[in-house]
Amino acid sequence: MAAVAGEPEVIRDKAAMRAWARRRRAEGKTVALVPTMGFLHDGHLSLVSAAAAASATGPVAVVVSIYVNPSQFAPTEDLATYPSDLAGDLRKLAATGAVAAVFCPPDLYVRAGAGGSGGAVSCLEEAGCGDGHETWIRVERLEKGLCGSSRPVFFRGVATVVAKLFNIVEPDIAVFGKKDYQQWRVICRMVRDLDFAIDIIGSEIVREADGLAMSSRNVHLSHEEREKALSIHRSLVNAKTAALNGNNHSQQIKDQIVQTLTEAGGQVDYVEIVEQESLVALERIDRPAVICVAAWFGKVRLIDNMEIQTHHPDGGASI
Amino acid sequence: MAAVAGEPEVIRDKAAMRAWARRRRAEGKTVALVPTMGFLHDGHLSLVSAAAAASATGPVAVVVSIYVNPSQFAPTEDLATYPSDLAGDLRKLAATGAVAAVFCPPDLYVRAGAGGSGGAVSCLEEAGCGDGHETWIRVERLEKGLCGSSRPVFFRGVATVVAKLFNIVEPDIAVFGKKDYQQWRVICRMVRDLDFAIDIIGSEIVREADGLAMSSRNVHLSHEEREKALSIHRSLVNAKTAALNGNNHSQQIKDQIVQTLTEAGGQVDYVEIVEQESLVALERIDRPAVICVAAWFGKVRLIDNMEIQTHHPDGGASI
Repeated sequence: MAAVAGEPEVIRDKAAMRAWARRRRAEGKTVALVPTMGFLHDGHLSLVSAAAAASATGPVAVVVSIYVNPSQFAPTEDLATYPSDLAGDLRKLAATGAVAAVFCPPDLYVRAGAGGSGGAVSCLEEAGCGDGHETWIRVERLEKGLCGSSRPVFFRGVATVVAKLFNIVEPDIAVFGKKDYQQWRVICRMVRDLDFAIDIIGSEIVREADGLAMSSRNVHLSHEEREKALSIHRSLVNAKTAALNGNNHSQQIKDQIVQTLTEAGGQVDYVEIVEQESLVALERIDRPAVICVAAWFGKVRLIDNMEIQTHHPDGGASI
Repeated sequence: MAAVAGEPEVIRDKAAMRAWARRRRAEGKTVALVPTMGFLHDGHLSLVSAAAAASATGPVAVVVSIYVNPSQFAPTEDLATYPSDLAGDLRKLAATGAVAAVFCPPDLYVRAGAGGSGGAVSCLEEAGCGDGHETWIRVERLEKGLCGSSRPVFFRGVATVVAKLFNIVEPDIAVFGKKDYQQWRVICRMVRDLDFAIDIIGSEIVREADGLAMSSRNVHLSHEEREKALSIHRSLVNAKTAALNGNNHSQQIKDQIVQTLTEAGGQVDYVEIVEQESLVALERIDRPAVICVAAWFGKVRLIDNMEIQTHHPDGGASI
């Protein structure tokens, strides 16, 4: 049954998804994938818009995948409470009029094996037994540091499930949000290193009116925690202003952010200033940089970031 | 320029290779890939035959890749002396009349990064510096044991380069020799776990008239070493006969093989009897098993194996 305008086709089966995408390509369409974990907000919908506008040369068939990937959660993390609302998600996607198909697989893994990495373990492996999934993709340098320090299985799980989605949907284009900055860079590197024929688009962060970066996890913030969490964006804006005004000392800028977050009642996981592509820490902001923050407010871990472009040979920063 | 019958088109560029394969598929052909490291012998040519016969429903475009993959060699191994003869390879492939294209990339990796696994290191990483390849695929259970014990980077390198070739050629079918039994199983598992839309064919071992399994490395054997190396096949045949005659005690059978190889002057790396799909060691040959052997004759490390099918509930073995 062909999808009508505004009504995405809902596909649950891997083989059906692949066949659908191959038909679209055979019709001359560009297939653009937006991988999500559902509980969609305006940030996700901006990814859909970016996907729909991704080809200047012809029609685009946008596929949104909704799958809460167990292999990127550690057993100590919030897989069990990760929010979901499939009916609401489908309504929002239909309302865009830009989505051709929604891929909602019930499970993307065979049962996890008793073997595995021996070190860090994901929810997938914790639940598993018997003869099962054992292939993992690691982007070994970029997956370290930042979120990789406190979430040791996260990027392994992300890279692996994204490769699976790429092989099922076989898209020409895939769109990722720059709010998950390290994830976006990990995927870009994986695509380059493994020769996937896919253009990766990094889409800008979408914020609430008060500056809070949109996140499915924001729903777990109390009113008071949400107010405190505004310190993230505030501290990033101040940091960027300081950099633009000539302070290129990363440590000073990081100290100021940590102080702002801590005074607001946040518990800092990390504040780092890194080079945009390599994610290598910068002592001086003398090249394109990004300030990355992760902090807990109550039981909710939030991440955010802000890019600072530089093009002054004397190391001064500009937008 | 279209290939004429018997004259494979030689392609060196990744993008050109992908475009070529996409054109063949658009013409309704099945694309079948045979990955090799060159210095082709009749074993490789049997893979080509299997590829050419792989589709019962329509024409097949066979692509043979020739690439000596540095990332599957440790710095202590024989990358520098691995034999090559591209002109001879192209003649042999043309003579089959079954090969449509030969993919000979000069280099499949960006320069290797200074980062990496921290543990085992391949020739690729040893040579590397700067900003480069850092994405690795591991099939974590199957890559352990057998050849994985003495060659710690081998299957990581194989899985990664095969994924790259899959993403460049985008074949419908790929053919691997069962002589590299563990490699074949690693690739099958990777394809399943990462949802590659590729059928993997395992092709039977091709032997010289005297029983030696064909291998590009056989060329490095002296006449005397070659004679001694016949003990591999002889011991495997005797082991299979023993199993078929009702001896299902793996340890007894393995001991006999080790004795035969050692008496012939070989240095045993391993002799294992494992379950065919999981490669889990078997104490009793009471299910489909494979006997795997690796041994050194002089400076040449040879591998071989023999499958034993069982379908007797009492644990007896049969062909």
